[in-house]
Amino acid sequence: MPSYIAPAKDMQFLLHDVLKASEADIPGYDELERDFTGAVLDEAGKLASEVLAPLNPVGDKEGCRLENGIVYTPTGFKEAFEQMKEGGWTALDCDPEYGGQGMPYLLGTAVGEVFVSANMAFNMYQGLTHGAYSAIHAHGSDEQKAKYLPKMVSCEWTGTMNLTEPHCGTDLGLMRTKAVPQEDGSFKVSGQKIFISAGDHDMSENVIHLVLAKIPGGPEGIKGVSLFIVPKFLVNDDGSLGARNGVSVGKIEEKMGIHGNSTCVMNYDEATGYLIGTEHKGMRAMFTMMNEARLGVGLQGYAQAEAAYQNAVIYANDRLQGRDVTGAKNPDGPADPLIVHPDIRRNLMDQKSFVEGARAFTFWGASLIDRAHKNGDADAEGLISLMTPVIKGFQTDKGFEMCVNAQQVYGGHGYIEEWGMSQFARDARIAMIYEGANGVQALDLVGRKLGQDGGKHVMAFFDMVKTFCKDNAGDEAFDRDFIEPLKKASKDLQAAGMYFMQNGMKNPNHALAGSYDFMHMFGHVCLGYMWARMGLAAKEALANGASDVDFYETKLATGRYYMSRQLPATGMHLARIESGADPVMALEAANF
Amino acid sequence: MPSYIAPAKDMQFLLHDVLKASEADIPGYDELERDFTGAVLDEAGKLASEVLAPLNPVGDKEGCRLENGIVYTPTGFKEAFEQMKEGGWTALDCDPEYGGQGMPYLLGTAVGEVFVSANMAFNMYQGLTHGAYSAIHAHGSDEQKAKYLPKMVSCEWTGTMNLTEPHCGTDLGLMRTKAVPQEDGSFKVSGQKIFISAGDHDMSENVIHLVLAKIPGGPEGIKGVSLFIVPKFLVNDDGSLGARNGVSVGKIEEKMGIHGNSTCVMNYDEATGYLIGTEHKGMRAMFTMMNEARLGVGLQGYAQAEAAYQNAVIYANDRLQGRDVTGAKNPDGPADPLIVHPDIRRNLMDQKSFVEGARAFTFWGASLIDRAHKNGDADAEGLISLMTPVIKGFQTDKGFEMCVNAQQVYGGHGYIEEWGMSQFARDARIAMIYEGANGVQALDLVGRKLGQDGGKHVMAFFDMVKTFCKDNAGDEAFDRDFIEPLKKASKDLQAAGMYFMQNGMKNPNHALAGSYDFMHMFGHVCLGYMWARMGLAAKEALANGASDVDFYETKLATGRYYMSRQLPATGMHLARIESGADPVMALEAANF
Repeated sequence: MPSYIAPAKDMQFLLHDVLKASEADIPGYDELERDFTGAVLDEAGKLASEVLAPLNPVGDKEGCRLENGIVYTPTGFKEAFEQMKEGGWTALDCDPEYGGQGMPYLLGTAVGEVFVSANMAFNMYQGLTHGAYSAIHAHGSDEQKAKYLPKMVSCEWTGTMNLTEPHCGTDLGLMRTKAVPQEDGSFKVSGQKIFISAGDHDMSENVIHLVLAKIPGGPEGIKGVSLFIVPKFLVNDDGSLGARNGVSVGKIEEKMGIHGNSTCVMNYDEATGYLIGTEHKGMRAMFTMMNEARLGVGLQGYAQAEAAYQNAVIYANDRLQGRDVTGAKNPDGPADPLIVHPDIRRNLMDQKSFVEGARAFTFWGASLIDRAHKNGDADAEGLISLMTPVIKGFQTDKGFEMCVNAQQVYGGHGYIEEWGMSQFARDARIAMIYEGANGVQALDLVGRKLGQDGGKHVMAFFDMVKTFCKDNAGDEAFDRDFIEPLKKASKDLQAAGMYFMQNGMKNPNHALAGSYDFMHMFGHVCLGYMWARMGLAAKEALANGASDVDFYETKLATGRYYMSRQLPATGMHLARIESGADPVMALEAANF
Repeated sequence: MPSYIAPAKDMQFLLHDVLKASEADIPGYDELERDFTGAVLDEAGKLASEVLAPLNPVGDKEGCRLENGIVYTPTGFKEAFEQMKEGGWTALDCDPEYGGQGMPYLLGTAVGEVFVSANMAFNMYQGLTHGAYSAIHAHGSDEQKAKYLPKMVSCEWTGTMNLTEPHCGTDLGLMRTKAVPQEDGSFKVSGQKIFISAGDHDMSENVIHLVLAKIPGGPEGIKGVSLFIVPKFLVNDDGSLGARNGVSVGKIEEKMGIHGNSTCVMNYDEATGYLIGTEHKGMRAMFTMMNEARLGVGLQGYAQAEAAYQNAVIYANDRLQGRDVTGAKNPDGPADPLIVHPDIRRNLMDQKSFVEGARAFTFWGASLIDRAHKNGDADAEGLISLMTPVIKGFQTDKGFEMCVNAQQVYGGHGYIEEWGMSQFARDARIAMIYEGANGVQALDLVGRKLGQDGGKHVMAFFDMVKTFCKDNAGDEAFDRDFIEPLKKASKDLQAAGMYFMQNGMKNPNHALAGSYDFMHMFGHVCLGYMWARMGLAAKEALANGASDVDFYETKLATGRYYMSRQLPATGMHLARIESGADPVMALEAANF
């Protein structure tokens, strides 16, 4: 069975050596002292290692089941969820007005990674609740907030997001679910929603569904979509539970992975719903929480890779097979451990350098979200908005790839479910799809985000990288290993942007055909930038006489690996992009 | 439920326009006339579409089960296996002396692809039998051949290959299974073997296990391994079945995919075995059939991608979502089909150009095997020996990646088992692992094959590419689209080879750390070469006034896509390789 230990030291390095969180001018960040975050991560790590990780294969094997309209979660999930609630983990970064602890989103992100690595399917019950909480918090009325949020903060009630219907996913304008206004101001919601994560289950008293639906007579398409609260049990004015609402589980989907999460078909049959915010402005309400939700999915990508990586390292050290070609490393044993072999190391270093880079990128993104929300900083908002599709698309693609790589270290045993490596790959696979499939992320990046506010944010990003390179030049080794590769990659990315500008005007397909490559390129440059920042922090720590020389030297070595072995991918992506739309669009649909 | 139609037209193009099989100076190839191969592929296609493909999801869902020592295959498998046998499909390229039809291996490969695409897990029962047949055919005594082969050719008896043990996979020198000589010349075989595909089942009267084991007192390690025939039921001299042998199924493994195949733990308890060939020369017997077996696994990689691609195309044409940014393509419908979107096309073109390139590479490889075996051509033997790890490693990596891409076209539905796209990815995953994990293929390529016979074969490959480029230069468009990109990629590959030569002497890790990238680079160059050959054939067909202009234009367009969008990967791999072993080997094992 796979094990998991929270990478608290790596996280502390990011929070304090790289991001210098407690010194940041963001409200609440002064609380993020090293000892405090260390204690929080240790506690989260204990719960993750001792309770959540052991349940991960259980959830995979048992899955959820629907019996007589009731959804049962796998053995042990209910008890673990109680521990999660009792520990106050669900309230960490929520608003104190509704019972939250008011911690920065950055800390919530670090803790979130720990839980997601340990048990992704389990953590989604809380994750979806957090998403629904955020939507009500941002757009609900004071009455709605008072009524629903405290119980959602504590996860006594959980939440869901209902967007997809059988015939429409990305193109929500095709939606058929309707909400008919009633005299008392409520609505009757009818329709079918699919792929509803944590749609129903036996771990909470109530489920607060957020449902997108159309009010008859409203505008056509996406502009006529509104957002509703549809509770499983209606809530009386005194907060007690009332009648069962007209919402039921049609079935639980059989999926490739995340079996521990109940992905439901939800049927709404004149269910009572309450409008959130303004009529027909449902998509806007959704979009305000999308950066956060997509960052959370991007986190799932590398968090699964982290868990898979940890186990691959253990296996590579334990499994004796073959000999080091440069001389036996375990001469008294029947063979050397796998980890002596260069190709096993190539594989592990790919994983390690990706995971640590992605974690840095995600933490940085979370701090930008805090800055945007808590300081009302429009530049931070613009920058994270630009990078969100990259965090989501690039990190989930790579995260899945790295889970597959980790599985490969196990040879045949990686294919056997008993060893658990298949589950990491199968679970990670969904992150490339939900919250907007990665092709849609690429479209969002190139079609909307690049040009947002006149291209201001992407220019700001390039300036930031340029300034970093300028400010930190002069150390020969650091220049060679970090600055120069970053400059080269950044130049490739700018060349791709230039290609889009020059050719996308004539034919938007010249940009769109390269969007996926651009997203990956951008991801590499961001991770390269983060590795340069981490390398710098490590270099400084060593120069300042840090005692843990091994730790910082390892950071530098891992960074050098990323810069020399991963970053050159930008050249390939640029070549693909610069070949334009013609090779991509050449065929008639009938000739595929 | 996914569907499948044999790509007979594409195969005919390869056999006749590109490889010009019936004109080749290989014994038996004169039979491969266009009409004949067309008829064979049509018949195989019928069986595949109507019988095997519909059973593919059944096998996945039901799996195999072990009850009271008997292994039951999924519903319908037994009947389908009967049809396979009755149609003579199992005997296609087997020796007529033992009831085979004596067709070229090339034709067997084409038919094999059709069956593997339709139902990979099912086809393995026959595939493993063919492998065991080849080993006995090459190394067994006349008596053994007469006794076992006729029934194996007809698949009345099936075969298995028993190599792996719980503690050893790649490093078979660690093997513990022992074979104790008996007075009558037989051996008593005892030990446990794992991951035995088609290890036991209810579709044949007998199972002929080929088992690697050590004869006590023999040389240490891999040099003391011998190969044995261990039948499930002993075979009397008159060919009738005798007593049950001491071999039993310990359990059926629970795997990520290929559930329709019974992957067994096999326990040998003083089972009667018969030595094949010479004592302690078991590995040699294995190796002679390895090119063929590995080519078969490389075929599985792209064959699964072909099946997944076909379904992705259907879905992309059916599913209405969003609008073409350059103007609605389905203005009367609620939305345009997915296939209008550039990123969907990018994805589908990646799949299409890979699959067709890989098929060409594999068919060419099969023709080299025929030439090696039937003409005793040592150069062909050397060339296919060099390319075998590339066919296996590159094609299974890419094949899996393309199955994942095809799944992605389906959005959320791709993650739901009901749609069948998950199965293609899960099934394809094993091909990266078995018959030597892909890292081992890379090691074989760089550590053994490159330098084989003084590097003669890799030089011959480069010469072949160079000659092709020289002979076919002069047409401006063809030069630009095919010749120049191929030259560039081939130059990258040569530079990588040069890097290994210059640095691998000092430290073999400089070569081994780049072995995986080299394998992928080599794969790209081979597919680029095949696309250039296909492009040339298409160009010539058009110049000769071929009526099916669309077909040949599509070939050229797909080739141009590969050359401009896939081939540039060689530059990235070269950069990785040229960064050497240091970044890869930098960390102490404890610092991972």
